[in-house]
Amino acid sequence: MARRPGVYHCGTDAAMDVIGGRWKVLVLWALGERPHRFGELRRALDGLSEKVLASHLREMEEDGLVHREDFDEVPPRVEYSLTSRGVSLNEALEPLGAWGREHVLNRAPTG
Amino acid sequence: MARRPGVYHCGTDAAMDVIGGRWKVLVLWALGERPHRFGELRRALDGLSEKVLASHLREMEEDGLVHREDFDEVPPRVEYSLTSRGVSLNEALEPLGAWGREHVLNRAPTG
Repeated sequence: MARRPGVYHCGTDAAMDVIGGRWKVLVLWALGERPHRFGELRRALDGLSEKVLASHLREMEEDGLVHREDFDEVPPRVEYSLTSRGVSLNEALEPLGAWGREHVLNRAPTG
Repeated sequence: MARRPGVYHCGTDAAMDVIGGRWKVLVLWALGERPHRFGELRRALDGLSEKVLASHLREMEEDGLVHREDFDEVPPRVEYSLTSRGVSLNEALEPLGAWGREHVLNRAPTG
């Protein structure tokens, strides 16, 4: 992992660097439900460009969060799923998700 | 709170938007230990400019995470502390911190 050893103040800080923004959280969340093909992820994460999604998936693979399986079929089928490490990060994010639901989503103006 | 209602995919996503990067996590973490004066925070968070810290604290105050107390003394004394909402966000970040300690910090090369 090409991270920044020695510059972290705490574990949360270090974890945030691995997550690196909202999109990876959403990828984790989608893959936490079930494995997805690239096109499915694209559709699930509207607003995320194909290029950025591909780069995020590559980084998440390098970080050992995501497993990429090429089924070697015609037409080509490639599926992305969470590794056990990805599952554990997803689980660690759950309380944060609950906080967001309670304190942000439920307070946002509707309509 | 000037957030983006309707654009969130899940609670974690919404919470990440409130956190908005690594520095706010570090502010939460420092204030979670005890109230800090501005200068103390500055010293605790080396690498963060005075301007950015001031703007982060202002946003965190608006988001109801941080309480700013002006003691009206000479010389001026202003202290920042966590609100109950800030405490709850800090607690929600704990599992993520544990994950980062286990999976990132303990894997980083030493020296």
